[in-house]
Amino acid sequence: MSRTAAGGLRPLEVADVTLAEGFWGRRQRTNRRATIPHVHEMLKRSGAIPALRMNWRPGQKHKPHPFFDSDLAKWLEGACYALATGPDADLARKVNGVVALLAGAQRPDGYLNTYISQVAPDRRWTNLRDLHELYCAGHLIEAGVAHHQATGATSLLNVVRRYADLIADTFGPGPGRRRGYPGHEEIELALIRLYRATGERRYLSLAGYFVDARGRRPHFFDAEARARGEDPAAVRRGREYWQAHLPVRQQDRPVGHAVRGLYLYSAMADLAGETGDAELLAACRRIWEVLVGRQMYVTGGVGPARDNEGFTADYDLPDDTAYAETCAGIALALWARRMANLTADGRYADVMERALYNGVLSGVSLDGERFFYDNPLAVHPARHDSWHGAPHRQEWFGCACCPTNVVRMIASVGALAYAARDDILCIHLYAAGEARAEIAGVGVLVRQETEYPWDGRVAITVQPDRPVTFDLLLRVPGWCRGHRIAVNGRAVAGRPVRGYARLRRRWQDGDVVDLTFEMPVERIAAHPKVSHNVGRVALQRGPIVYCVEQADHAADVHSILLPHRARLTPRFEPRLLGGAVILRGSALAVPAAGWKGRLYRPDPAATPKRTALRAIPYCLWANRTPGPMTVWIPQV
Amino acid sequence: MSRTAAGGLRPLEVADVTLAEGFWGRRQRTNRRATIPHVHEMLKRSGAIPALRMNWRPGQKHKPHPFFDSDLAKWLEGACYALATGPDADLARKVNGVVALLAGAQRPDGYLNTYISQVAPDRRWTNLRDLHELYCAGHLIEAGVAHHQATGATSLLNVVRRYADLIADTFGPGPGRRRGYPGHEEIELALIRLYRATGERRYLSLAGYFVDARGRRPHFFDAEARARGEDPAAVRRGREYWQAHLPVRQQDRPVGHAVRGLYLYSAMADLAGETGDAELLAACRRIWEVLVGRQMYVTGGVGPARDNEGFTADYDLPDDTAYAETCAGIALALWARRMANLTADGRYADVMERALYNGVLSGVSLDGERFFYDNPLAVHPARHDSWHGAPHRQEWFGCACCPTNVVRMIASVGALAYAARDDILCIHLYAAGEARAEIAGVGVLVRQETEYPWDGRVAITVQPDRPVTFDLLLRVPGWCRGHRIAVNGRAVAGRPVRGYARLRRRWQDGDVVDLTFEMPVERIAAHPKVSHNVGRVALQRGPIVYCVEQADHAADVHSILLPHRARLTPRFEPRLLGGAVILRGSALAVPAAGWKGRLYRPDPAATPKRTALRAIPYCLWANRTPGPMTVWIPQV
Repeated sequence: MSRTAAGGLRPLEVADVTLAEGFWGRRQRTNRRATIPHVHEMLKRSGAIPALRMNWRPGQKHKPHPFFDSDLAKWLEGACYALATGPDADLARKVNGVVALLAGAQRPDGYLNTYISQVAPDRRWTNLRDLHELYCAGHLIEAGVAHHQATGATSLLNVVRRYADLIADTFGPGPGRRRGYPGHEEIELALIRLYRATGERRYLSLAGYFVDARGRRPHFFDAEARARGEDPAAVRRGREYWQAHLPVRQQDRPVGHAVRGLYLYSAMADLAGETGDAELLAACRRIWEVLVGRQMYVTGGVGPARDNEGFTADYDLPDDTAYAETCAGIALALWARRMANLTADGRYADVMERALYNGVLSGVSLDGERFFYDNPLAVHPARHDSWHGAPHRQEWFGCACCPTNVVRMIASVGALAYAARDDILCIHLYAAGEARAEIAGVGVLVRQETEYPWDGRVAITVQPDRPVTFDLLLRVPGWCRGHRIAVNGRAVAGRPVRGYARLRRRWQDGDVVDLTFEMPVERIAAHPKVSHNVGRVALQRGPIVYCVEQADHAADVHSILLPHRARLTPRFEPRLLGGAVILRGSALAVPAAGWKGRLYRPDPAATPKRTALRAIPYCLWANRTPGPMTVWIPQV
Repeated sequence: MSRTAAGGLRPLEVADVTLAEGFWGRRQRTNRRATIPHVHEMLKRSGAIPALRMNWRPGQKHKPHPFFDSDLAKWLEGACYALATGPDADLARKVNGVVALLAGAQRPDGYLNTYISQVAPDRRWTNLRDLHELYCAGHLIEAGVAHHQATGATSLLNVVRRYADLIADTFGPGPGRRRGYPGHEEIELALIRLYRATGERRYLSLAGYFVDARGRRPHFFDAEARARGEDPAAVRRGREYWQAHLPVRQQDRPVGHAVRGLYLYSAMADLAGETGDAELLAACRRIWEVLVGRQMYVTGGVGPARDNEGFTADYDLPDDTAYAETCAGIALALWARRMANLTADGRYADVMERALYNGVLSGVSLDGERFFYDNPLAVHPARHDSWHGAPHRQEWFGCACCPTNVVRMIASVGALAYAARDDILCIHLYAAGEARAEIAGVGVLVRQETEYPWDGRVAITVQPDRPVTFDLLLRVPGWCRGHRIAVNGRAVAGRPVRGYARLRRRWQDGDVVDLTFEMPVERIAAHPKVSHNVGRVALQRGPIVYCVEQADHAADVHSILLPHRARLTPRFEPRLLGGAVILRGSALAVPAAGWKGRLYRPDPAATPKRTALRAIPYCLWANRTPGPMTVWIPQV
């Protein structure tokens, strides 16, 4: 049902990709078996599912919260992806239950918001800036499309279409319509997705309206505030917080709340893809260059500041106070996927990969039932200022955006690995499993066998329904400094095209492409303007960024110094942390003994001592005894 | 009028010490000429002085604030110290004006609080925890004593005695008295000071009551909250914030709001001195060891956290987010002075000196009219989360505690340098100037001639009214690893006694003691549990801690690496920053060129380049173009 984005690659749908036993396959299994039921249970306990019964009364517990519907919708979207990739009767029952409740919660006119309808019915559409109405609507729409694609049913799709129709009847540039746009973006990309699923152009138009109305003068948030009897100047935050300081086509850097920004930029990319709007694409590129070139953690985390949950200044990337919200990492991956498909430029998939393997995956525990909201790159022994508590994951949050975003991201990660267009099949990411797409009019199955990212070898078997000529675009990761390709055992060069190796041939059933990416352990330096990291290195192997965690060390991890010449040896350890490549080597540690109660003394007073260093993947930290951790290690 | 503390040294009064041209003399001149008039003007503009007219009505501007009287009182105290050390007709007029207003603001029953009386008259004594009533009272009492000592007048002393009498009639353990103690300590040490100035023992008893009532069960703050109809459990902060979690004699570490804690510990030391209470002194020693051994910045700054303006965990000393409030550094110096006099142990004066020369003095600009509230040890290019703004001092704050505390600290710093007892004269600090004390029944004048801290030589001339035998205790700073002493040109050893050299002799008029402290540039390491500072060093020479500031460097200061063997040369530069010893040397800087828009890349990719390093005293930073700064420098 997907339409081909103008000029770009078409994403595959979740149902088109099945992951096998492997890095992501195991994560998806945990997502299905543990995370999805856990989150469902927490949505019941927190009140998000009970709120759908629409019988809350003032004074009762579980007062509906403005975010409830979005949390629920993201879980539902992820649950539908899980259904799309494997039958699951129990999950289907849960999904059906929630869909029925949603249908029942819809107002006769199509409106569907459990918070507004039950807590503040007189405030409908009165505060788009703060009340998250259109944000929740967007997530409901995404869930409706996912439900339809997973099950073929139209029950929820019809619900969200009625809601989208109400919104389209309410907002827009036309006569008798309300002006405005939301404080938290999401409706924009959701409407484009609904357009793609239904072919209904009014949804695309409305998305375009919401995107382009943003930041124009006179300023909607001011008018809206005045209409509520409030002083527009009394608002604490600057308009950058909502990316509403300028019309989006004039924006040139990421600002404000990170998730909001990244959802907006995603919608801008989608619009550019649908309409060929070069100006929107150029704005995306400008913002991207600043974000990725000056404001992204090595883990792919973005948005360093707690205060605005978002962006700050170039090169402001402190480790221990890094906010780097899990949702922001996910949103970056979603935007990067769009940019990758729009441009077929490997730099975008590089960032998608970096975020997914590191700053996104760190957001969920190995057992799938605990979550990080923020993802610092260092935890010091006394982490006193954490908003969300000690350095261990939590089972839930008052603001539960991250766990539900993890559900839908991991359930759909397979689809992020591929894209297609006409006579092109593109592999952005390497993951054991198979994908089906129609290429040049022929159904093609591709199967990846690989232990990536632990091993740099990938065997790709191509199985067209009949022999067919097309381009196979294989991403050569930006971190990789040496790779080999063989087709049916014979070395080929592949034509390098902006981060991809292009193999054009008449593909026969059973053709095998063997890829080998060299994966040495690399010491990564940050630009020296990242002032917190001068004199330090991060360790990376393949797409995996490492950290040193207290659980592996007798010496305080922050007292460890890495000699320039120390050799670091990777080894796969099947029984550690679910099976992972660990880096081992010999480092130095500043001894804590001999200080006799003193806090300061002349240096050098003690010679650092040899200590064994063991680095684990950052995404796996905090799965054992909680304790200090650091990604960046002083180098001596 | 001062009484001798039992078992310890007696502090000198401000009027007994006159500073000459020298490090502190120049600062005191700026304090008199610039800071005192500036702060007076700001107290007028902010409303603290207008509030004394007691004619504010709801709806008018300059609504009195709970802190107003304390700010005013600290200025007044400092202004009186200035009058005590030099005639100043204009200042005397200002002081008289404020004293007259204070007398007029006193209620018939002796009560004196501009906020409560004008804004919330029904709340008198209803919220000792939050409303700062007894805190303001304490500062007024200190001002009253200072005014009396400076001028001989009793006008303000009588006002504050009437207020103290009202408080003593209101609070205490006796029948018909209210129980309780303040959320912000200060009244305790003020009452002891008033006792010393008047001989009235009820003030000492009440101070003892306030100190010992603290933290006992049932908990006063709970009872007080219930009496206001509030739920005691609804308070956001734990009782540690107010040092009210335990009776003070059971406390063993610094907790909560730093200034509050340090004023409490100061009062505990005073009580121990007055009463010989070994248990209180032991509690002080326990708390001190933790604070100085695990929780103090190398600048003498304390209280790293913004959230509670106070203490956190051992070794939690992040540089760039350091709060290290100016007032907390001052409060540490005040407590250290008490501990030094109580014990005659040089370790306490070492801390007093460290705080005064570094984290206290950094709180005020060289021109005396700008102030830091918090004193970070590093400023990164993107300092986005500062509560008090960019890395430059401000002329005033909504909460104006620091500027007024600076006024009284600098005006009285000379008195901190000396102490006496029976046949002992003790010099804690070296500063050009002279002091007069009665030793063994004889008036003795001592004069210091020195360029300390820029130079380690101090010439001390002793001028007794007639020859007299006494011990001259000369502090040998803890930072000093080599010193020489000569009396009248002949080398002497001096008997080392806990950080002091004791010279006992029959002193004749004109005896000269020549002290020479070796002052090499030292690289200081922090205990490796200070995890932010591993692999870094601070530079110190004498008591002065250095920093590198952007204004002196073309390379980003945070990209500078200090080679282990780099030689650092001190040189006095008379025209820089009012005249200061600057450290120069050759260091390395990681070049920012060649990154081509990348944020991360494999290391090593660039060789650090030679760069000239210039370190300035930390206390002098931010007196030129605002920019990044760091105290701790990575060492390679």
